[in-house]
Parts: sequence; C-alpha cells; structure tokens
Amino acid sequence: MGNPTIKILAKELNLSVASVSKALRDSHEISNKTKQKVLALARQMNYVPNPYASSLRKRVSKTIAVVLPEVADSFFSQAINGIEAVAQEKGYHVLIYLTHESFAREKAILNEFKSGRVDGILISVSGETSDSKHIKDVAEEGIPLVFFDRVCEDVDTARIVTDDFESGYNATSHLIEQGCKKIAFLSISASLSISNNRMMGYKKALKAHKMKVTEADIILCSNDSDENYRTIKDLLKKKTRPDGIIASVEKLTAGVYRACKDLKLIIPGDVKLISFTNLQTALILNPPLTTITQPAFEMGKAAASLLFKALDKQSHEVKQETVVIPSTLTVRSSTGS
Amino acid sequence: MGNPTIKILAKELNLSVASVSKALRDSHEISNKTKQKVLALARQMNYVPNPYASSLRKRVSKTIAVVLPEVADSFFSQAINGIEAVAQEKGYHVLIYLTHESFAREKAILNEFKSGRVDGILISVSGETSDSKHIKDVAEEGIPLVFFDRVCEDVDTARIVTDDFESGYNATSHLIEQGCKKIAFLSISASLSISNNRMMGYKKALKAHKMKVTEADIILCSNDSDENYRTIKDLLKKKTRPDGIIASVEKLTAGVYRACKDLKLIIPGDVKLISFTNLQTALILNPPLTTITQPAFEMGKAAASLLFKALDKQSHEVKQETVVIPSTLTVRSSTGS
Repeated sequence: MGNPTIKILAKELNLSVASVSKALRDSHEISNKTKQKVLALARQMNYVPNPYASSLRKRVSKTIAVVLPEVADSFFSQAINGIEAVAQEKGYHVLIYLTHESFAREKAILNEFKSGRVDGILISVSGETSDSKHIKDVAEEGIPLVFFDRVCEDVDTARIVTDDFESGYNATSHLIEQGCKKIAFLSISASLSISNNRMMGYKKALKAHKMKVTEADIILCSNDSDENYRTIKDLLKKKTRPDGIIASVEKLTAGVYRACKDLKLIIPGDVKLISFTNLQTALILNPPLTTITQPAFEMGKAAASLLFKALDKQSHEVKQETVVIPSTLTVRSSTGS
Repeated sequence: MGNPTIKILAKELNLSVASVSKALRDSHEISNKTKQKVLALARQMNYVPNPYASSLRKRVSKTIAVVLPEVADSFFSQAINGIEAVAQEKGYHVLIYLTHESFAREKAILNEFKSGRVDGILISVSGETSDSKHIKDVAEEGIPLVFFDRVCEDVDTARIVTDDFESGYNATSHLIEQGCKKIAFLSISASLSISNNRMMGYKKALKAHKMKVTEADIILCSNDSDENYRTIKDLLKKKTRPDGIIASVEKLTAGVYRACKDLKLIIPGDVKLISFTNLQTALILNPPLTTITQPAFEMGKAAASLLFKALDKQSHEVKQETVVIPSTLTVRSSTGS
C-alpha cells in the first residue's frame, strides 16, 4: 500500500480533513484525545507528509490571490488599491481573479489554488454564491483566506465588512425623513451577505417608522445593466410607483437616472434616490447623488493586513474575527425636497 | 573559469545581450556572420545554457503581468476585463502591478520580472516614464512584452494604441465648430505618448482652423485631484479664461465641473468641455458630458492576444507591429451651445 493521504486518514477516523491536518500540526484547536487517535493511525498506516505539498505551504510563491466579482466598479478598484498598498510593502505579488458574479467561475478559480500557486487568498464572493463548500475546501488545505465586503457567514475565518445593516437602516430613515411614503429597495442577489444585511436594515427602519414592509417593493436586479434599466423603468411606470429608491450597489445607479429621465420624473421632486457607491462623480451628477460610501481602500488594506498577520505565523492560521469599518452617508440633492 | 553567461559573451563580442541570445537560438534576425562569431566564442569559453533560466523561459509560470498606472480609472479597469477574458480562456493567471504614475516604482516592478516569475508582460507606462531602459532590459531577457495605450516609441515590440492624434484633432475641431475661441488643453504628462499625441492633434486642429497655438493654454496637471482642481480654478479665474477645455484624461474631468460650479460658470454656456473618459456616468452628469471614449476592453483583449501569439511560438518573439483601434466621439450637452 502506498502513502496514505490526509484524506484517507480522515475517512478512516470519520473526521474532517481540516481536523486531521490540524491534529498532525499539533494545533491547540484539537483535543489531545483526537490527536492521539490521529497519530496512532498515521503511524499504523505509515503516513508520511507530502514534502512537495509541505514546501508549497511555506510561502514560497510570495503571491496572494484577490478574488472579486468585478474590477470596473469603484468599490472594488479602490479596495484593490488598499490591498496592493499592503502587499507591495510586504514584497508580495497580487494575482487578480474576476468571477463576473458567476458561482461556477468562482469554484473553478478556488479549485486551482489547491496546487499551492498562492500563499493566501482575499475574497469577496459572487452574487450567485449561496454555498461555501468550495471555500471551505481551500481553507482546509491550510491556505489562509480572509473575506472582505461580501462574506460567507459559515466559514470560520477573518472578515472585514462595513456596517451594512446600519447603512441600510440609515439610508431608509433618511428617505422617510425626507417625506418618502413608498420606498423601493434594489437588490442584486438574494443570497449575498451585503444585500441581505442592507435589506434587513431597510426593513427594520420601515418598521421603526411604522411603515409596512411590502415584498413587492424589493426588486431583484441582475448583472445586465440594460435589463436593470428596463426593470427600474417598469417599476417607475407603475401606478403605485415608489417615491424613494435605495440602490444597494453602484451599478444600479445609472439605471435609475436614465429611467427617470425617460419617464420625465424629476429627482428628487418625484423620486428620491440614495445609492451605495464610491463613485467620485456622485457630486457632479444631475442632480448630485446622496450616497452611502464604503471605506473601500481601508477595507482592502485591513483585509490584506489580517492575511499577512496569518502568513507571519508558523501555522498560517487566520484568527477568527470580524472587523467592521463604518460607511458614510453623504446627503446631496438627489434626496433633497 | 566558471560557466560564462550570455552577458559576458555579449561584452566580449561588443554585441547586445539580446543579439547574443538570439544568435544562440538561431534567430533569423541575426546575420550568419554574427551567429558564427557568437557560436565560436561560446564553444571557446565552454558556454553552457543555464537550464534553470531556460526552464523559466518555457512558460512554466502560466502567469502574465499587467503593469499599469492605476486601477481606479474606468479605462484601465475595462482594459483589465479585456485582458482577463483572454488570459482566462488560455488558462493563464494575471498579476496586477500598479505604478501609481511613479517611474521609480515601474522600474522596481520590471526589475523583479527578470527572475522568471512571469511568462509575459503587458504594460501601460507611468506618466513619469521618459526613459525606456528598464523595459528594454526585461525584453532582452527574452520575456515577451506588449504595450497598450501608453507606449515607449523606442522599444521594438508590439503596441496596441488608439488614434490619439486624430481624437485630439477631432475634439478640438468639435469645440471650434461649437464656437470656442480659446481652447485649453489639460495634460498630465510632458513625456507620455498619449498626452503628446492628443496634444499634437489639438495643435494641428488649431492651425487647420487658423487659430494661434498658445503654449500657456496647455496646462500640465498632476496626480493629485485637489491640486488639479485648484489649477483648473486658477485657469478659469483668469481675465482671459478659456471658453473651451479638453481634459486629456478622465481624472481631470471632475475638477472642471467642480471649478465651474464654484465660479458659477455655466457648462456649456461659459465653458465647453470635452473629456477623454470611459466613465459610464458621462450620460448622467450635470450637464451630460461630451466624451472621447477609448475602446478599453478591445485594447486589453488585443494586447493580450498579441502576447499569447508570441508565447505560442517557440522563440516567444513578439512581432513588431502597431495596432490602432479607433476611439469614439460622443457629443452631449457639455459642448452644446
């Protein structure tokens, strides 16, 4: 019989690969009883650690991967700047992978990392990602991984987020204070953490102001800007059209402006608009846009810093923590009376 | 005596490293006479090719580098999308390096590539880059390199550009046709190919319309948006202020809008503005912006395709060619009467 792998040991012992791997590395996370069981079987089966795999884990690539939905978005491009600033300081190289919001592509990308091409991973998941097995698989290989902005709640690792719930709450409260009676929430994903947190903040604010939550006011948009434009136009053509709109991601903003212009609806007179965006042109739009701006650069920087903190440790283990960096509400004419 | 390197052979023969390397690879670019001289000395000095260096040249990294000034710019982020589309299809990984318009940083980045980390390079040079030795050095190592958008004219390789001269000419002609008598040209670099070509088009158009070229109307801006805003404001405060402005790069656009707003100058009534930009919000600015849009995605795709064409060849030689993909002038209210 050849050299058994950690997988075979795990199967025999009915343990996860991660647990066996941690037991072999004498991790404090594993009980002594389990460690003894693992070591006994490893000896019995003549388990020899794979030296190639082990050398691959020793930060030989000096490369980190950044997996994100898109680059042509001011949040992500500013986050890359933050990541790059830290990586450059550490003498690391940055591989960029774009999922274009596709779950299949995200899985294929992560699968490649198992070969040891990168020392660590920073990821903001796609709008389609509803299952995190592909991420857990990579983490189990001992490759440290940190989430930023869009996270999977069920993967035990570090995550850098912004206060999406509070931002959704504040955006909604602001529209209510400006006199809106019917507020639509434009979402891009039913499964995405950020979308859901912003939406929960929206619902909570409505309730706090004794307004009814109507599921039909929550509009699921897509990845296609022309389709979104039509969706928004249809929404605004309705007899019971909203008088306030929250665009929960940047790329939905232009569609609202376009649709309003086509339908001769005045922003903010007929429809008030607030967007989650880092667009530097928000100020010079017609009318200037009220925004929730995320601390993109800071989030990128913080995520990279936590990843390097793990890489600086012998174990490469990422400390489980959630760092929240608050967003900023900037009021401009698009929500003015 | 140890194994002499190509560098020593080159020095002895008073040839370039590239020429010796090509001679040893029996390239058609090298005369038979030179080849014989090189081979004779190589035999005499017991030259043995470095197997490690050679394996590094055999596309083992499956990685290409993209070196660019910044990522938070719609041209570059769309170009990355084009590059990534081709790389992904070819099964290649994409390393992103940002120079932040610094020549020193660009040199440091390119210097790292000599170790064989990447199989090929796509580069758009920084605004400070006035010398191309660092690029020639890498090309001489046999690593294929393709320029896109911002090129060095004196490096023999492939380049993907847009019609900057014609675009500068057309932008200027459009402002003249709209009645402008004094047109300012906002540049970000005195050495950059794209800036100079756009400026030459501007000068040519002025002359063609029998208007005087005034050097004081050509404003050199910087990398700092607040500083640029002040420069533009000072320009517009002058008694002899321009009635037309060409912003030769995207990031100068917001400064013009801000300065006009502060000085209560109406766009287009007092000042007409045309920008080189790929901003998707151009349409919803106040007023909507007349743009020269570069084919960013197509340029990125074309540059990557030429690089992979070279990598598919045994020699990895990049065919010397210049591909021009035209930009588009879209007239909107910012230049309307």
